[in-house]
Amino acid sequence: MRRLSVATAVLLVAPHAIAHDDVMLAAGRIFKPIPSATPAVNDNPVTDEKVKLGKMLFFDPRLSASGIISCNTCHNLGTGGVDAGPTSVGHGWKKGARRAPTVYNAVFNVAQFWDGRAPDLKEQAKGPVQATAEMNATPDHVMSTLNSMNVYVAMFKTAFPDSTPPVTFENVAKAIEAFEATLTTPAAPFDQYLNGDGSALNDQQKVGLKLFMEKGCSSCHNGVNIGGQGYFPFGVMEKPDTKLRPTADKGRFAVTRVASDEYVFRVAPLRNVALRAPYFHSGQVWSLKEAVGVMGEVQLGEKLSDKEENDIVAFLNSLTGQLPKIEYPILPTRTNETPPPSLGR
Amino acid sequence: MRRLSVATAVLLVAPHAIAHDDVMLAAGRIFKPIPSATPAVNDNPVTDEKVKLGKMLFFDPRLSASGIISCNTCHNLGTGGVDAGPTSVGHGWKKGARRAPTVYNAVFNVAQFWDGRAPDLKEQAKGPVQATAEMNATPDHVMSTLNSMNVYVAMFKTAFPDSTPPVTFENVAKAIEAFEATLTTPAAPFDQYLNGDGSALNDQQKVGLKLFMEKGCSSCHNGVNIGGQGYFPFGVMEKPDTKLRPTADKGRFAVTRVASDEYVFRVAPLRNVALRAPYFHSGQVWSLKEAVGVMGEVQLGEKLSDKEENDIVAFLNSLTGQLPKIEYPILPTRTNETPPPSLGR
Repeated sequence: MRRLSVATAVLLVAPHAIAHDDVMLAAGRIFKPIPSATPAVNDNPVTDEKVKLGKMLFFDPRLSASGIISCNTCHNLGTGGVDAGPTSVGHGWKKGARRAPTVYNAVFNVAQFWDGRAPDLKEQAKGPVQATAEMNATPDHVMSTLNSMNVYVAMFKTAFPDSTPPVTFENVAKAIEAFEATLTTPAAPFDQYLNGDGSALNDQQKVGLKLFMEKGCSSCHNGVNIGGQGYFPFGVMEKPDTKLRPTADKGRFAVTRVASDEYVFRVAPLRNVALRAPYFHSGQVWSLKEAVGVMGEVQLGEKLSDKEENDIVAFLNSLTGQLPKIEYPILPTRTNETPPPSLGR
Repeated sequence: MRRLSVATAVLLVAPHAIAHDDVMLAAGRIFKPIPSATPAVNDNPVTDEKVKLGKMLFFDPRLSASGIISCNTCHNLGTGGVDAGPTSVGHGWKKGARRAPTVYNAVFNVAQFWDGRAPDLKEQAKGPVQATAEMNATPDHVMSTLNSMNVYVAMFKTAFPDSTPPVTFENVAKAIEAFEATLTTPAAPFDQYLNGDGSALNDQQKVGLKLFMEKGCSSCHNGVNIGGQGYFPFGVMEKPDTKLRPTADKGRFAVTRVASDEYVFRVAPLRNVALRAPYFHSGQVWSLKEAVGVMGEVQLGEKLSDKEENDIVAFLNSLTGQLPKIEYPILPTRTNETPPPSLGR
């Protein structure tokens, strides 16, 4: 009796189920779910001690010259790991040149920054701390600040027991990288789908996924981070509006000095993309639907229909995962040796 | 047998105990421990729904015009509820005129701001959101921002079920006030001492407490917040250095226009004072010991000895309480209706 009803059920849903399975099978070859465990990073074992320390450093504005800008200012964990955009604002109210990339799932990217100029998160972490238009600090300032607080020194000793001295700029970067490696967002509906739960996506999302693969989006946006791996020109088929692709920012060309890398950028990872408007390195598109339309035109040479755009956006919404719970860290108290803030330059 | 040994114990420790008890008794008349329950606030019942909403608003930088400054930027819960000082930096990198006051235990103050110009936290909350040198927003910007996100609208409906419309600038302020009312820091060593545990302060701290009462510090710094109640001139006995008391900032005079209120400020609450350098409304003194010395001279007309300063600082260190654990809030996602950031003006 039980066997019979199962058989009936299979018969009843079979055509639908098989269609789903085709899409699911194709998706399984192109994308990967976010692993449930914290991923390993090169040359920096992720330990609880580093993660705890790295979280404090990530939220500590005193690493900046002004004392008011932390990593979290531009990579705000409460708003998708990015700031309000379009591009970041830093020391001296200076405007950065590009949209802040998200720290969530950044560990899955092949390299960091829009142009991939940092091979990993520890190298990335050293950039904004020193950038004039961001935190405007020097490694010396960071060292003096951290060494002035015993709690920090003790934490570095525990996190880097073999390092003498314990507080180094390299270790600051490694601790931040360790914390950022924990900033993954598993269990999005799409992950559940990739793990075999056909009901995790609704029908529109499945149509969107199919379009995403058939139209060619997934040629670049694939893997665990639905992007973040290769480098491609922004404007494969058509030149984007200069508002979206300002002439002055030649992307990866500045890193490689190879002519073919002009206006080449690392493929944007699309995990949690619905949380992170405005879009593109210029941060000039505020609607995800509009961004999908732009990508269709300039990368695929195709004007997507309104319905297609909506379906793809529905799929992209399925990429929103579970953000980790973060207890806001209580930071060590400054001492008389802590460098005072400096607002100038 | 039991009664006998108690009697013996009393006899053995009696001289010491009586000396302690005198100080403890005197302290009990002057100070009050922080209550374990969240205190009530005027005209705004503190409910879980308001607290949850208020926490999100407190951390949401999108209430500011630039989209990058939240309440927490200047009242950083990770660094004693204040920023790095000396005075705050806000929209356009403008410098504020005074040191950010802490939000921790602010609910116990008789009024808010250094000059007491806001009668309570809900009135206070409306200030920095609109101040040009702080968040530089308008109530309209705040309303449009919040109304653009359904999650916020629903939370306002739940937190303010009798309010039509649910999202009002007044309700924003009330929710923030409700959250801030939870930012109390009980169970400092001094609270334990006030609650009868003589061993909660060490000997130096007891000497410092005695000095604090005998020298006259507690004439102004008393009650549950060890200050925060009355208004007194900064410079009762001697005129402070103009670096510490800039001539242009006449304090409460700007509120009352009464000549005797020139350079009058609300007494600084000293809870967690060790976490909150730099000191004074000008934020120009970075060492707590130096601040104690200044107060001795300008308020009491007395040059404290090095030992006296150290002892009083030891006592002030006993005012550091247990900071509440705060889960960093995940904020609602912006929509196409959310006003974009504006960096100008």
